[in-house]
Amino acid sequence: MQAFQLTAGETYRLQRSDLPTPAPRAGEVLVKLHAASLNYLDLMVARGRFGEIAPGFIPGTDGAGEIAALGECVEGWAVGERVIVGTFADWAAGPYTHEAGKRIRGVSMPGSLAQYAVVPVTALVRLPASLSYREAASLPIAATTAWNGLVAGAVRPGSTVALLGTGGVSLFALQLAKAAGARVLIASSSDAKLERARALGADDLVNYRTTPAWDEAMLAATGGRGADLVLETVGPATFQRSINVAAIGGTIFTLGFVSGMDVTFPVLAIMLKTLKIVGSQTGSTANLAEVTRAIAQSRIEPVIDRVFAFEETPQAYAYLQEAHHFGKVVVDIAAG
Amino acid sequence: MQAFQLTAGETYRLQRSDLPTPAPRAGEVLVKLHAASLNYLDLMVARGRFGEIAPGFIPGTDGAGEIAALGECVEGWAVGERVIVGTFADWAAGPYTHEAGKRIRGVSMPGSLAQYAVVPVTALVRLPASLSYREAASLPIAATTAWNGLVAGAVRPGSTVALLGTGGVSLFALQLAKAAGARVLIASSSDAKLERARALGADDLVNYRTTPAWDEAMLAATGGRGADLVLETVGPATFQRSINVAAIGGTIFTLGFVSGMDVTFPVLAIMLKTLKIVGSQTGSTANLAEVTRAIAQSRIEPVIDRVFAFEETPQAYAYLQEAHHFGKVVVDIAAG
Amino acid sequence: MQAFQLTAGETYRLQRSDLPTPAPRAGEVLVKLHAASLNYLDLMVARGRFGEIAPGFIPGTDGAGEIAALGECVEGWAVGERVIVGTFADWAAGPYTHEAGKRIRGVSMPGSLAQYAVVPVTALVRLPASLSYREAASLPIAATTAWNGLVAGAVRPGSTVALLGTGGVSLFALQLAKAAGARVLIASSSDAKLERARALGADDLVNYRTTPAWDEAMLAATGGRGADLVLETVGPATFQRSINVAAIGGTIFTLGFVSGMDVTFPVLAIMLKTLKIVGSQTGSTANLAEVTRAIAQSRIEPVIDRVFAFEETPQAYAYLQEAHHFGKVVVDIAAG
Amino acid sequence: MQAFQLTAGETYRLQRSDLPTPAPRAGEVLVKLHAASLNYLDLMVARGRFGEIAPGFIPGTDGAGEIAALGECVEGWAVGERVIVGTFADWAAGPYTHEAGKRIRGVSMPGSLAQYAVVPVTALVRLPASLSYREAASLPIAATTAWNGLVAGAVRPGSTVALLGTGGVSLFALQLAKAAGARVLIASSSDAKLERARALGADDLVNYRTTPAWDEAMLAATGGRGADLVLETVGPATFQRSINVAAIGGTIFTLGFVSGMDVTFPVLAIMLKTLKIVGSQTGSTANLAEVTRAIAQSRIEPVIDRVFAFEETPQAYAYLQEAHHFGKVVVDIAAG
Repeated sequence: MQAFQLTAGETYRLQRSDLPTPAPRAGEVLVKLHAASLNYLDLMVARGRFGEIAPGFIPGTDGAGEIAALGECVEGWAVGERVIVGTFADWAAGPYTHEAGKRIRGVSMPGSLAQYAVVPVTALVRLPASLSYREAASLPIAATTAWNGLVAGAVRPGSTVALLGTGGVSLFALQLAKAAGARVLIASSSDAKLERARALGADDLVNYRTTPAWDEAMLAATGGRGADLVLETVGPATFQRSINVAAIGGTIFTLGFVSGMDVTFPVLAIMLKTLKIVGSQTGSTANLAEVTRAIAQSRIEPVIDRVFAFEETPQAYAYLQEAHHFGKVVVDIAAG
Repeated sequence: MQAFQLTAGETYRLQRSDLPTPAPRAGEVLVKLHAASLNYLDLMVARGRFGEIAPGFIPGTDGAGEIAALGECVEGWAVGERVIVGTFADWAAGPYTHEAGKRIRGVSMPGSLAQYAVVPVTALVRLPASLSYREAASLPIAATTAWNGLVAGAVRPGSTVALLGTGGVSLFALQLAKAAGARVLIASSSDAKLERARALGADDLVNYRTTPAWDEAMLAATGGRGADLVLETVGPATFQRSINVAAIGGTIFTLGFVSGMDVTFPVLAIMLKTLKIVGSQTGSTANLAEVTRAIAQSRIEPVIDRVFAFEETPQAYAYLQEAHHFGKVVVDIAAG
Repeated sequence: MQAFQLTAGETYRLQRSDLPTPAPRAGEVLVKLHAASLNYLDLMVARGRFGEIAPGFIPGTDGAGEIAALGECVEGWAVGERVIVGTFADWAAGPYTHEAGKRIRGVSMPGSLAQYAVVPVTALVRLPASLSYREAASLPIAATTAWNGLVAGAVRPGSTVALLGTGGVSLFALQLAKAAGARVLIASSSDAKLERARALGADDLVNYRTTPAWDEAMLAATGGRGADLVLETVGPATFQRSINVAAIGGTIFTLGFVSGMDVTFPVLAIMLKTLKIVGSQTGSTANLAEVTRAIAQSRIEPVIDRVFAFEETPQAYAYLQEAHHFGKVVVDIAAG
Repeated sequence: MQAFQLTAGETYRLQRSDLPTPAPRAGEVLVKLHAASLNYLDLMVARGRFGEIAPGFIPGTDGAGEIAALGECVEGWAVGERVIVGTFADWAAGPYTHEAGKRIRGVSMPGSLAQYAVVPVTALVRLPASLSYREAASLPIAATTAWNGLVAGAVRPGSTVALLGTGGVSLFALQLAKAAGARVLIASSSDAKLERARALGADDLVNYRTTPAWDEAMLAATGGRGADLVLETVGPATFQRSINVAAIGGTIFTLGFVSGMDVTFPVLAIMLKTLKIVGSQTGSTANLAEVTRAIAQSRIEPVIDRVFAFEETPQAYAYLQEAHHFGKVVVDIAAG
């Protein structure tokens, strides 16, 4: 099979190679991948931020395809079934544990930037007919993270959700929050992106470049009440404003370290408003199945910014790094 | 003021009288009522099913109006404010308690079928500008019950909700469940009512008269998966089918005793499907405020079947008793 | 290896045989069993109540032993490690699902009444040094069920728990509830058993033979407040009294069908007290790990009524059927 | 009546005065106070950190006494009943809200350092016979905070709780965590205090003066697993170590600003361990009732460091400020 192999480092390298197609063992299936999508996580892996990468490592976390072969003792799955590939090989369901984090696709086990991948059944989710492979490949990290943020914030009709930026997580959160009956506030540096967010249902828009006190603008838009959930996708640069924008009893769902690693906040503020700050670790295969069902049932169309052919994978990495995208960056493997 | 006074009994009597307008004490306000709505509970009270009723008792649980006077030490409320009147005088928030149930409007304290009522601030909810008094008067029992059902079932995008009939609770549940991103299955004895339910967003319709095995029809509609939440508004006549229709891990939210008082179900079924049966006790003032916010934000229009003038209150009782309504039966007090 | 094979039916038969020792596949280990324990479930299986049993089927759900061999791709486990064998091969964690229920040890896959068993790592729990194999073999069904009951009832200091009888589930619930700071009420038909329950920490004792209105006695003991959690281990014969004994907001954790399959209760009671009836389906491997940790940390000693040698397994079944036990009935396989 | 009046400021002044006894209005009672206890909050109020204090303001948040008179429409309470006085006049139950925080005893309404106080029934908790007035006066802020920390961390048998220091909150948390079946790790600067903590049930002790890397010591004591709940009573000086000591899925319950107002932590750590940071706002009257019930039922004896006579109230403030106490500092008003 064709696959990309990663040499990690500040100037990482992606090399296309011919490799033997792996064989599934008991409890595993072989998936013929049709599409992959890229995440900030993939850039971090490529830069060596998540530990040493073995020579010849195949990167890429998110993927979707069809089952090409079954290992021993696999029941309930058939060759030809369309599937989404979950992030964690051993995190079927329930809270995150040490064991659940041992094998992460594209981080500590071979990833999705290949024509085939071996996947344990505990990481498989059935792909609904209404979603294409490209759309499905967008879901594992971004949609699952957004979903778990909405669950952590108990978002429902009457809730208000604040989003920072228009990356994959923010846009899935926007679409899912609207489906869940919430009001959505969103901040971006681009009026054009804000208009596209409005077309997806966003209720209140703030350009944080022209309105640096975007927290005050969001508070004003809600009559001073604030947001029940803030999806903190940025980090130190925004954290104090995120705390400020939160309503009494609100949740700051935290997954951002784009702007740095250490966050500072005023203790009294989270006490007086009884806030919760919740750390995000993507989610389990069960969470991916939940959000896939929600997206299919609510007829949400994942927002794909741009699709690259398989052989353009290095360009896809470079494009993601520019951080100009609105939604997901996808690699079409079947088209490679 | 004008008020209706109730003589309870199997053949109850509602008598219109001139009474002195009551005065609010510390922590209370006087509300000039504009509208009331009737519930099955009001019929039960009138028939003496909820204990002895004092001579001259003013019935009517649900109401809405404007603040006409403030008692001592009332802060944060002003004369002229539009308000909804909560069911429980002493249940501001949190789980139900023995103390919370002591004073129930129209059951164990004077009710809303009068031109004025004294209401403690712990039972007041601000009426959003987008809702009329008639719509607001529809909310306290029916919308709060529906809301707490959705909360008990953790309804969200991807969920499936099954509803029995087209009374006030079912229709609020239908509208709120759609706003929350759920798929809605509904059973009724009338194709015409089912079509009206479809217009409100219902996804799957079953006429239980022509399809007595409505549970099987609902299971088939969901590919055998069933409903995450069943709103059990009927009782013994439907309970076993409701258990049958529930999905694994589902919730049966129970508030129905129209068809009898004692329910029977197979123990093994709730074990093997890990079901929860949850008893409904309407809800707190905080719950009423939550559902009011949800309804206003989602621009839900409460379904009002018919409006009676104040002096037609006895006819409104009789009409409710016929049980042909689709949505709420309202009394317009200001128009009386 | 030596194993018991079951011919199910009203007069079931257990036959000791010499069978080939099975080999673990990928993701599985071979466990040399040291002890098993019996549950009411095993009697139901033997009587054919849970579906047809294949000829030569090895029964027995609960078991504990040491790892004798590893299949392929098993990481984090070593030969010689002491382990408890979980009930569900595919229910690692999270809520119960259809898939989780496919392979149940001793019901729909070979069980623990053998010298060796193949166990997927998703069903393994490490055995703490402080527990013997006999004690460990007592845990999977009974302790996990008791634990999930306490979790469903949110039992904590200040809570009150009501228990019916002195079987394995009730006694684990008694010990765990005391460790969790709760007050425990217990009903039994035997004063001698009640005294033994008191020695384990029970606070209030009722002999339901001499006090048939045991619910009234329990209510009186709590000053009318009732129990926050009732472990309903019996069924129709006790259900209405269990509802009666529940405190406002209480939980009826339901796992009993000893006295029949269909339960009847008054709808109004669960509405007016806002009760929850929760069906029990034992629990996941993660739940078994939780209760094992709780038992080890709280130095709870599982109550073992009687230990049978391996070859006495048929007598152990007969003894359990007499229902005179106080705590668990264990088979010592290593001593066989 | 005799009362202390506060002139707030860096060098605050407490002046004993003769004042008219206040009269309860509708929904209020007059409480003859027997004891008060002091908290760090009282020092902050005295230093003017919580806003301007009106001239003649009576400070003191925690108090206990007996009902001396009833206002109008007070049902269910009798003159002579022993009561604990809750912190928030308008926070009966449920989540914290803006309205709930309007009237805080000893902060924004007259406090407990007086012979009498007017208390709305929404802030009253019945005092169990087993607790003295001095013990009861220790509960409102410290025990309620500790309780809500344990609830936020879902502490139960098998849990591990880490505590910083031996103030009132830490010691209530120690006693309640032991009653709830948890293992308790505690850090202090004094070996003598650590020995007293051990006598109260603490399992693992660390002197953070002699072992500055107390987080590493706690991790080692738990075999690297860490604590499910950390009660962060200190602030910036300890926060990063608190994050470090937390187990996967753990909760940092945050109420400390003794060492500063702004806390910094590594975002990745709370993501990779899926931690929750929860801000504490003491709790509602219902929470105070819950912890009072738990303490009475578990026969916990509140740890009182020192009792001052009423006229020694200024010395009690000075003593608290020295921060050498082990448990609560109490003022015996009846003995004044």
